[in-house]
Amino acid sequence: MKEINAEIIAIGTELLLGQIANTNAQWISDELSTYGINVYFHTVAGDNHTRVKNLFQLAQERSNLVIVTGGLGPTDDDMTREAFQELSGLSLYEHKRSIEKIEHYFNNHNRVMTPNNRKQALVFEGSKVLFNETGMAPGMIIEYNDVQWVFLPGVPREMKHMFKHKVAPYLFELTGKKEVILSRTLRFIGIGEAELEHRLFELIKNQSNTTIAPLAQDSGVALRLTVKEKSEAIAEKLLDDTEERIFQEVGTYCYGTDETTLEQVVVDLLKKKGMTISSAESITGGLFASEIIRASGASTVFPGSIVSYQTQVKQDILGVSKETIQSYGVVSEPCAKEMAQKIKEQFHTDIGISFTGVAGPDSLENQEIGTVYIGIATQEETAVKSFRFNGNRNEIRKRAVLKGLELIFKMLK
Amino acid sequence: MKEINAEIIAIGTELLLGQIANTNAQWISDELSTYGINVYFHTVAGDNHTRVKNLFQLAQERSNLVIVTGGLGPTDDDMTREAFQELSGLSLYEHKRSIEKIEHYFNNHNRVMTPNNRKQALVFEGSKVLFNETGMAPGMIIEYNDVQWVFLPGVPREMKHMFKHKVAPYLFELTGKKEVILSRTLRFIGIGEAELEHRLFELIKNQSNTTIAPLAQDSGVALRLTVKEKSEAIAEKLLDDTEERIFQEVGTYCYGTDETTLEQVVVDLLKKKGMTISSAESITGGLFASEIIRASGASTVFPGSIVSYQTQVKQDILGVSKETIQSYGVVSEPCAKEMAQKIKEQFHTDIGISFTGVAGPDSLENQEIGTVYIGIATQEETAVKSFRFNGNRNEIRKRAVLKGLELIFKMLK
Repeated sequence: MKEINAEIIAIGTELLLGQIANTNAQWISDELSTYGINVYFHTVAGDNHTRVKNLFQLAQERSNLVIVTGGLGPTDDDMTREAFQELSGLSLYEHKRSIEKIEHYFNNHNRVMTPNNRKQALVFEGSKVLFNETGMAPGMIIEYNDVQWVFLPGVPREMKHMFKHKVAPYLFELTGKKEVILSRTLRFIGIGEAELEHRLFELIKNQSNTTIAPLAQDSGVALRLTVKEKSEAIAEKLLDDTEERIFQEVGTYCYGTDETTLEQVVVDLLKKKGMTISSAESITGGLFASEIIRASGASTVFPGSIVSYQTQVKQDILGVSKETIQSYGVVSEPCAKEMAQKIKEQFHTDIGISFTGVAGPDSLENQEIGTVYIGIATQEETAVKSFRFNGNRNEIRKRAVLKGLELIFKMLK
Repeated sequence: MKEINAEIIAIGTELLLGQIANTNAQWISDELSTYGINVYFHTVAGDNHTRVKNLFQLAQERSNLVIVTGGLGPTDDDMTREAFQELSGLSLYEHKRSIEKIEHYFNNHNRVMTPNNRKQALVFEGSKVLFNETGMAPGMIIEYNDVQWVFLPGVPREMKHMFKHKVAPYLFELTGKKEVILSRTLRFIGIGEAELEHRLFELIKNQSNTTIAPLAQDSGVALRLTVKEKSEAIAEKLLDDTEERIFQEVGTYCYGTDETTLEQVVVDLLKKKGMTISSAESITGGLFASEIIRASGASTVFPGSIVSYQTQVKQDILGVSKETIQSYGVVSEPCAKEMAQKIKEQFHTDIGISFTGVAGPDSLENQEIGTVYIGIATQEETAVKSFRFNGNRNEIRKRAVLKGLELIFKMLK
């Protein structure tokens, strides 16, 4: 197969009702672009037999790689299989390993397995079956009418896992390209997207072999570098050179590459330095702790946290003095300071971090919504910084946690 | 126009490269659903003349309302206008008010207006021009070949403003409906999607005036009921009747309607009963606390939490006895029991809930990954239940928290 024209079809009425966005098509397109595969269409159709069948018909006329997500589940609404069967005339059989997994799940959870659940294990004769490691319905790759058909589950987590582990290697072979496409993502914290692009303006403008593109992410900013070269060695070298030049400008804000998370970097830095951290959380309510423990190895550096949501807990359990609270209030620098110091003492850690503030919807102690004090206590000193974050109550909390991680990162690196 | 079959076309190579998701189609679909307009397809095509033209051709064969977003801008890549012109043969003219706005912008910003910027002001003869209040390129509504064509800018902010102020009133007139469309979402916990549909099979099969559709959501299962009736009163009544019949079957699993969250229901139940709750969290690491405080009013029922991630904290801070840990380990029923009792005592709450288990990637104390003990201590008794959750470490944690909320919900309702 020389030139691949791909299209992505998503099946699901919830997409046509606007309940969710078609993020599966976005994700798959992004993946395919790194293989140099051109995607010419995304289409969404609902759970309607005739329309799905017609769409498949159309797809095989204009594309030679068709990736279909969704409609493989147990309900009557799931009709991807049925529509493709009508088009192709291929017969279905029950995939042994998949039905065993489904039966095992229902037995283990003491749930009744209704007959429609068996439907999920049906696969086409002659297809390459993609066992679903993270869910139930298997995927399939079928060559039919000179078109490569790839059927994947609609649940993003299942789809992504299956794509990465089972579809990607297959596509790599399919493209049969001599060129190597490599990409690397650089992740930044403490710098905005506009400033990052401004400072890299000349670099972005003048380069040609490397694409430098900003990438949407939940926290901070990321840049994706992509190169297409004759060999992996040359591609790696070019990526290294570009990274080096970016680092000269904005390296101080970079916390990692590719799938690195800020919490993982913080945990790794703590491990490397043989240090531990504990948290005293009011406004963040346990969110800092639950972010830290997402990182592997967190158990060796993070003994735990006290979530002191009510004032009484700050006094009785955490040990903040009554005087501090009466004189300055709970949303104050002195309270943040004592919270950080007390948690450090109680948990015998090298660092204690504290969060107190106003998440809204109501203001507190006459402080504006979004006001957050973050305290960091170490052996040497206790520092408190105040911030004003935008957003609704949960966004303010997330921003506070991110800022806390950024402060620890800056301190340790 | 009696029955409207709509489709939404988005033009833009950035969508096919996976740089952004097609949130425009989601937003428009959601709007159209409130008008009772059925959307049968979403399609994305890139900035390619022939493919866009073919897509328009296909759209007018299968739909009678086609909404197109994007491709109206100044660059050579923007070819929505050109493609539709080739299909329709309609001629273009420069829209006076739009070109004035564009010229005014460039004068005001001391920027050179390049010739391609004039292109943005071109509109079709006979079209209803939608002046762009928040951007430059105007939109258009054209009736051609018995199809209503609506052209909108691709920038979400501009598109939404234009849709709300100029397209929505037009569609309202177009539908000419006397009917009212109402929908209601019922949210369930503790029952799977397949079982829910199985138990409601007869109801779903036999009803005709109400649509009952499962809805994807992060936690639990949801059903959306939609009715189309002559008056709001009749529609409400029909929704009530359907809800009643669903409740007879599976009411025990329903925790709320529409935008209700499980944590909000739990907090509201606690408030209603004048009860308080605290948490002792090992495996969940603060996630239960941070979920509870998402609910408004949480501060009156939830004083806080102790995150005892390391064993030493379970002993020293929480007060679990050394003997219990030595005899049974931390991932055990006795440890979960003591954790729940100790947090209840320390925080003086009516309920103490505890979470201890193995999130992986490594197993712990020879217990399998996914094993979680949840303890609930009340004035009367302490109960511990054990579970086995699937997924990666963060999914296991989320499922544990959800199960904890479910147990409290069942206990209080």
